[in-house]
Amino acid sequence: VQTKLPAVGTTIFTVMSGLAAARGAVNLGQGFPDFDCDPRLVHAVTDAMTRGLNQYPPMPGVPVLREAVAAKIRTLHGPHNGRDYDAASEITVTAGATQAIITAILAVVHPGDEVIVLEPCYDSYVPNIELAGGTVVRVPLTPGTLRPDFDKIAAAINTKTRAILINSPHNPSATVWTRDDMLKLQEILAPTDVLLISDEVYEHMVYAPAEHHSVARFPGLAARAFIISSFGKTYHVTGWKVGTVAAPAPLTAEFRKVHQFTVFTVNTPVQYGLAAYMADPKPYLELPAFYQRKRDLFREGLARTRFKLLPSEGSYFQCVDISAVSDLNEAEFCKWLTTEIGVAAIPLSAFYGNGFDQRVVRFCFAKKDETLNLALERLAKL
Amino acid sequence: VQTKLPAVGTTIFTVMSGLAAARGAVNLGQGFPDFDCDPRLVHAVTDAMTRGLNQYPPMPGVPVLREAVAAKIRTLHGPHNGRDYDAASEITVTAGATQAIITAILAVVHPGDEVIVLEPCYDSYVPNIELAGGTVVRVPLTPGTLRPDFDKIAAAINTKTRAILINSPHNPSATVWTRDDMLKLQEILAPTDVLLISDEVYEHMVYAPAEHHSVARFPGLAARAFIISSFGKTYHVTGWKVGTVAAPAPLTAEFRKVHQFTVFTVNTPVQYGLAAYMADPKPYLELPAFYQRKRDLFREGLARTRFKLLPSEGSYFQCVDISAVSDLNEAEFCKWLTTEIGVAAIPLSAFYGNGFDQRVVRFCFAKKDETLNLALERLAKL
Ligand SMILES: CSCCC(=O)C(=O)O
Ligand SMILES: CSCCC(=O)C(=O)O
Repeated sequence: VQTKLPAVGTTIFTVMSGLAAARGAVNLGQGFPDFDCDPRLVHAVTDAMTRGLNQYPPMPGVPVLREAVAAKIRTLHGPHNGRDYDAASEITVTAGATQAIITAILAVVHPGDEVIVLEPCYDSYVPNIELAGGTVVRVPLTPGTLRPDFDKIAAAINTKTRAILINSPHNPSATVWTRDDMLKLQEILAPTDVLLISDEVYEHMVYAPAEHHSVARFPGLAARAFIISSFGKTYHVTGWKVGTVAAPAPLTAEFRKVHQFTVFTVNTPVQYGLAAYMADPKPYLELPAFYQRKRDLFREGLARTRFKLLPSEGSYFQCVDISAVSDLNEAEFCKWLTTEIGVAAIPLSAFYGNGFDQRVVRFCFAKKDETLNLALERLAKL
Repeated sequence: VQTKLPAVGTTIFTVMSGLAAARGAVNLGQGFPDFDCDPRLVHAVTDAMTRGLNQYPPMPGVPVLREAVAAKIRTLHGPHNGRDYDAASEITVTAGATQAIITAILAVVHPGDEVIVLEPCYDSYVPNIELAGGTVVRVPLTPGTLRPDFDKIAAAINTKTRAILINSPHNPSATVWTRDDMLKLQEILAPTDVLLISDEVYEHMVYAPAEHHSVARFPGLAARAFIISSFGKTYHVTGWKVGTVAAPAPLTAEFRKVHQFTVFTVNTPVQYGLAAYMADPKPYLELPAFYQRKRDLFREGLARTRFKLLPSEGSYFQCVDISAVSDLNEAEFCKWLTTEIGVAAIPLSAFYGNGFDQRVVRFCFAKKDETLNLALERLAKL
């Protein structure tokens, strides 16, 4: 078989989770919680199934869920000059954020179009662009700080640029874009018709003084953007695979044309269950405090190792510099750490097209305290 | 926004379901049951959620479900010279059949490759090929019988042909390919390296004397094929959006490369629930008799109208010729039937690129007896 994505193997997350399972290592690699969701959420889905809501929902998602999402955006971002989204024509439910991102790309990227990604970036972005026939333009985040370099971004834009993909809170670096960052991007894009795909799946995991500045708050950005959210990350159900896209009606119309032929629609009872559960905003409002406590616990433990801690302003990740601990490259170090020390991590090099190695690896702290403590105990040996 | 799929609007199913709902018509248009699934299936999914199986499953699907699917194929097709699929490397769980089909296409179709579809065909095939940059080659089924014309298929194959898409039991025509049809296709493809995408979502709805001859039973076909199945159709849960693909390991490897960046993976508790439910083969073994009774009830009623009945050998569809009833074209007739008579149907012209009108419309009989009786009562007025 002549291969379509020659550069692609199995995702690093699958590889490291497999190795962790095989070696009985504590899995701080792939980003998912090892604790369960709120039982009320399970009941809400069961209730929908039991009421017989098991056939095709409307293609863009069930109206009550789209309305709940529009209302949430209005509540969180409205007071900040945020764009108001129409549930009927501007919100679409997707089979997780991954499907949302590839669908947005397939909907707007024509063969030969350039699409800018900021490296390091999530591993699906580049193959997604390639599958649409687009040309990937890689702009590095500033080494060391892993923050955006707006001169480099501006320099990468030309008449062929169709879209730019951004992600804040950022995976893998755990940095969060400031209001000023967003305003700078808005200024750069203002004279262009470049579209924006904003991956905001960690929107509810931001730790003060950092704040989540959604693209929805910047009218000049929102007017050209697909904003992508994830129920899996927010409600501790990464295995349910449901997300949403918010975009102005003309962009949503293009998105839905492709969506209807990509998955057609998304699990009905899960959608009704999520809609019922969203009536209470507490679960997502309490999320930052919940994860900040875990982040602090984990950072305190790591401070007693020879790892150098990078900031963790958002997401459920913590990056560390391994220079003082090992001479291995990141990928080899992660394998060694998994098999010999019993803790799985993810090398940042996996998020770069050229495998750039800056001696930094990523841990996920979305774990029970006992899991984090066990990992810290093992890491203390280093 | 410069549009990516200029020919595409909203799917005919969404349009007709919307019109049916607005007019309070009996919806025999979009293919989905109006009765509920087995409560044991709901319990099995609830059980998985309650046991905390809510995080990412393995990317290709949970092993127990893949093993259940491989075992089912072995049981049904093994005695007919069927290919034995390895659950680990040859079965992948998908977010419904639609996602399976586009993923197979994205995985193997390179820009400029030709892909053959047999018209009339399901409305996602053509845009799927276009999104991959492929060239669609349309071969008509024989007008009147809507059966494959193998001379035309053979004539359409050339060195640029990358794949052919087939679908038996066939939507919309309700025809079923014979063993001889499959052997003819095998013979035509033998000297080529053309790949095969076989949409078999109605595999368990075939009415004697017709029989489902899965591609899995023909080693020369199976070796080059993606075989696509749907739990939604089989278990009366079209809204759950779970399907599978069976393909030889090298094809599965290519499929999974794209799958991991299309949806990554599929709802975990639904997968476990389906796996538990599949332990009992009765539900799918009893499906033909269940639907044959509905088909016969519906056909008997239609026989008292001026519609001319076409055969329904498989699927849950019944096509009728409208010539003796109306002078409207198919699409106008379906709108009229929905709004004036109160019964929604789907025009076959929606399954042709050029809107070919043969005065035939499709009804779905996957409905409660009372629904079918109400529709028949209304149709009796014609
Ligand atoms: C889809 S598996 C990867 C989960 C994740 O978001 C991450 O670990 O970065
Ligand atoms: C995905 S909605 C269409 C359902 C169906 O398979 C049909 O009606 O043909």
